[in-house]
Amino acid sequence: MADLVTDRRRVKLLHGGDIYSAQEQLSLMENPPDILDFSANINPLGLPEGVKQAITKSVDTYSAYPDPLCRELIANLSNFERVPGPWLLCGNGAADIIYRLVYAKKPNKAMVLAPTFAEYEEALKAISCQTLHYELQAEKAFRIDEEFLDALQLEQDIDMLFLCNPNNPTGQLIPKEMIFKILERCKAWDILCVLDECFNDFLEEPEKYTAKDYLEEFDNLIIIKAFTKIYAMAGLRLGHCISSNEKLLNALIKAGQPWSVSIVAQTAGIQAMKEKEYLIRTKELICEERKYLIRSLESLGIRVIASTVNYIFIRWPFNKKNPLHEMLFEKGILIRNCENYYGLSQGYYRICIKEHEDNMVLIDALSRVEKQ
Amino acid sequence: MADLVTDRRRVKLLHGGDIYSAQEQLSLMENPPDILDFSANINPLGLPEGVKQAITKSVDTYSAYPDPLCRELIANLSNFERVPGPWLLCGNGAADIIYRLVYAKKPNKAMVLAPTFAEYEEALKAISCQTLHYELQAEKAFRIDEEFLDALQLEQDIDMLFLCNPNNPTGQLIPKEMIFKILERCKAWDILCVLDECFNDFLEEPEKYTAKDYLEEFDNLIIIKAFTKIYAMAGLRLGHCISSNEKLLNALIKAGQPWSVSIVAQTAGIQAMKEKEYLIRTKELICEERKYLIRSLESLGIRVIASTVNYIFIRWPFNKKNPLHEMLFEKGILIRNCENYYGLSQGYYRICIKEHEDNMVLIDALSRVEKQ
Repeated sequence: MADLVTDRRRVKLLHGGDIYSAQEQLSLMENPPDILDFSANINPLGLPEGVKQAITKSVDTYSAYPDPLCRELIANLSNFERVPGPWLLCGNGAADIIYRLVYAKKPNKAMVLAPTFAEYEEALKAISCQTLHYELQAEKAFRIDEEFLDALQLEQDIDMLFLCNPNNPTGQLIPKEMIFKILERCKAWDILCVLDECFNDFLEEPEKYTAKDYLEEFDNLIIIKAFTKIYAMAGLRLGHCISSNEKLLNALIKAGQPWSVSIVAQTAGIQAMKEKEYLIRTKELICEERKYLIRSLESLGIRVIASTVNYIFIRWPFNKKNPLHEMLFEKGILIRNCENYYGLSQGYYRICIKEHEDNMVLIDALSRVEKQ
Repeated sequence: MADLVTDRRRVKLLHGGDIYSAQEQLSLMENPPDILDFSANINPLGLPEGVKQAITKSVDTYSAYPDPLCRELIANLSNFERVPGPWLLCGNGAADIIYRLVYAKKPNKAMVLAPTFAEYEEALKAISCQTLHYELQAEKAFRIDEEFLDALQLEQDIDMLFLCNPNNPTGQLIPKEMIFKILERCKAWDILCVLDECFNDFLEEPEKYTAKDYLEEFDNLIIIKAFTKIYAMAGLRLGHCISSNEKLLNALIKAGQPWSVSIVAQTAGIQAMKEKEYLIRTKELICEERKYLIRSLESLGIRVIASTVNYIFIRWPFNKKNPLHEMLFEKGILIRNCENYYGLSQGYYRICIKEHEDNMVLIDALSRVEKQ
């Protein structure tokens, strides 16, 4: 049946982390190399050992239906995020929440940054919503500044705004004061602000950037977070959102099935929040390796645009005939080619930060690829 | 935070299998009994041992993103269901597929049976679709007959029809010839027929009732199936659908996130299809225990309306002041009170078939509850 399955590749795979297509392609080579995936922004420490044990230990419970209300998970998450339980809702990954939001609110006109995570726009397309792109400028290293507020003012009739902080793939942060100003305008103009903080926990000082403090004041704010990246649980699917707008959360519940969060994900999430030492090790590793990678990339003449969390956004200034990702792919190394992001062109790449040995392999490979 | 979480019980839990609310309620009792759940239609053998082992063995793979195309799973499923791979799509349980269908097709007017599985109508509500109920008649033991075709003719302007075969909760089967006639009418009137065969694999002769043979002829047919029930994987979430209408399947893909099927679910599904002996044991157990339960229920004066798969639909003809489910609940026994199904009233219950020891406990409890 292999050929039939191949035929189904009618779906365009937009994202990083597609090790499955890579495996298929590489398997056609005579001596296929092992895959080293720098294209997905996942914690390089992998699933915490305690979470692996919890999954294994709970295997007898997976026959039952999951709790649609995720009661135990939310009770723990409420303490962990320091927000009231009724402000929380869990989903089958953050992506589940993005689609629920769009289906529940049915915006007529929405605004997204460009470049940014593609699923906001994919979800908006599913309801044929008019989507405006606020194009971040390369000259400003893709940072948001006061001009964004003017753009919002010009487009007062939008219903929904998607922000991502730090932004994916650029890694640029929006300062908290700017978030506040944006929220004020959004409130005045009745815009729901969807703020994706999926990478916030990788920051050295997450509290300095999270908009959680604004939730009480702004019921037009919903923050999206995920266990996926910070706990390396992408294959288990667990995300959540936080809002003081309980009416909105109720609408999200009704916009999809009751059992979207599996028992495995609930079990893993409850355990993950206990892994405090894992988070400390994560930040130390990312901080150390970011320095190493930035230094090494720059010494190879590669422009580092920004890095605040577990990925680095770069511009490859060399040979355009042989794209960098293709040259690395032959060695089994996957990096995120950012060419398909709205607002970016050839030569932009996102590289996730992995453990030192892997990072050395990448730097070594980069030093050998053809630059002319 | 416990009280805050309790406050979130603003969501009405519609379905059986809610052992979490039961645990909460029973924990308030002085000597809370153990829970024996007859309210969810899950294979009483529990998760196959081979599947448990596969989940445990694969724990290191759960960090990566799942394959959005479920390639390996679909290659296996294609052989298992004997349909071409491009006719298959997997989801986060059958419920995920139901919502995707509704969001992708956006029907204006739909028809569902009454009573039937409530999520069809819940999904239709999410897009404010006008939903007609075809009320099955108690006098006919809730069977579908030729009159249903007349009703369809009267309502030619419907876009979508949901059928469930065998129907949940009644257990009644629609004969294959009747399915064919319905499909012919649906084709003539441009109605998409969504046929839920989630319980088909529990039948003694599944081939005798499945509409898979009609898929090639009818591109207005989509069959929904699930691993959830037959492999006791409800907590893992895995369902699939089959249709020769690839345009429709493409629309379903775009109606939700790319990573809805977790790696755990994909891994479990691939292993489950190898568990051939488990399926044989399941059918033997269900067949044997169905006989025991029906005989015992009838000897207690309880009316058995129908049972073709792993559940039995009954009418409790006794005391209406003390509802049966409440009397059993005090003993820790959960059965599905069918009162909240559209088209049913007080006194209808659905009981799933479990292992003999458990079934004896139920019959013993039923023989002791107050009947006057």
